[in-house]
Amino acid sequence: MLAGTMKFCPDCGANVEFLTPAGDHLPRWVCTVCGHVHYENPKLVVGCVPEWEGRILLCRRAIEPRHGFWTLPAGFMEKGETLQEAAARETREEAEAEVEIGSLLAIVHVLHVAQVHVMFRARLRAPRFGAGAESLETRLFDVADIPWPLLAFQSVRFSLQRYLEDRAAGREPLHFADLHRDAAR
Amino acid sequence: MLAGTMKFCPDCGANVEFLTPAGDHLPRWVCTVCGHVHYENPKLVVGCVPEWEGRILLCRRAIEPRHGFWTLPAGFMEKGETLQEAAARETREEAEAEVEIGSLLAIVHVLHVAQVHVMFRARLRAPRFGAGAESLETRLFDVADIPWPLLAFQSVRFSLQRYLEDRAAGREPLHFADLHRDAAR
Repeated sequence: MLAGTMKFCPDCGANVEFLTPAGDHLPRWVCTVCGHVHYENPKLVVGCVPEWEGRILLCRRAIEPRHGFWTLPAGFMEKGETLQEAAARETREEAEAEVEIGSLLAIVHVLHVAQVHVMFRARLRAPRFGAGAESLETRLFDVADIPWPLLAFQSVRFSLQRYLEDRAAGREPLHFADLHRDAAR
Repeated sequence: MLAGTMKFCPDCGANVEFLTPAGDHLPRWVCTVCGHVHYENPKLVVGCVPEWEGRILLCRRAIEPRHGFWTLPAGFMEKGETLQEAAARETREEAEAEVEIGSLLAIVHVLHVAQVHVMFRARLRAPRFGAGAESLETRLFDVADIPWPLLAFQSVRFSLQRYLEDRAAGREPLHFADLHRDAAR
């Protein structure tokens, strides 16, 4: 289910139970001793579509899930950074590339894993890139060569499709999509 | 600091330490026995600017922080819902009102508390509203009567200002803002 597992209270170490607190409308992990309610919330995954002279930078994943498949640089947002800073940091970590973050491209609700994927348009500052620890390789793809069947995630495919359509039409709107389990990849 | 406190591992109940795992770049809560790394990430707070025939619906807070101050309906996103569903649910809970969610108005990074505030434009489906459990009262305000000095949060003030400027100019762009501790309210 969507609730993570928790056995012990992070505050006092006692056992927790999964129940709906008084006045609440959803079950939560509640400590049987100190009563602390441990809320769980969706996580932000942030990335970008890095472009250089018409070509798109993709990373081939060195980690699970989807080891060996191609993806856009993206990852979990950290505390203390903005969405734009998170997208630039992930590109630095996974593709060893510096980007200028542009307009917001897509927000994809990945409902079955409680993630919100946020993707920006971006431009490489220079044609310099490499393979970070989580990448097997990175490569600039001409649009005609993008390996669509080998993309790692549905949110990557959605973002890339909208990006290319918008670029051809000379516009920069924001797109929303909702993904459920069946459409996860 | 930005890191939450955690004393015991939610998985095995042993003590945790705050240290940077091998290959990571930030300190995390790591279990001294089972080794599980417990990541903490920014939380999404989602709301809207509900309009009815030119007037704006505000809620006066019945809870801390900022008890007694006016706010837009907004709250923590839950797992399993979209941003739009979260904004509509919070409006239902806090203002007992049904809204049609429109375009994305503002994303505010509230950096010192690791929150991302996401605000939508919205329209009341009917001029029916009330005070939910977290509200002392709710009221439709003419623009001239909005209680600016009594607004609860800086992200609410920012969103409302941009909303009204955009409405007057007949446009619906997305606005970003970054708030630090000094500008929190």
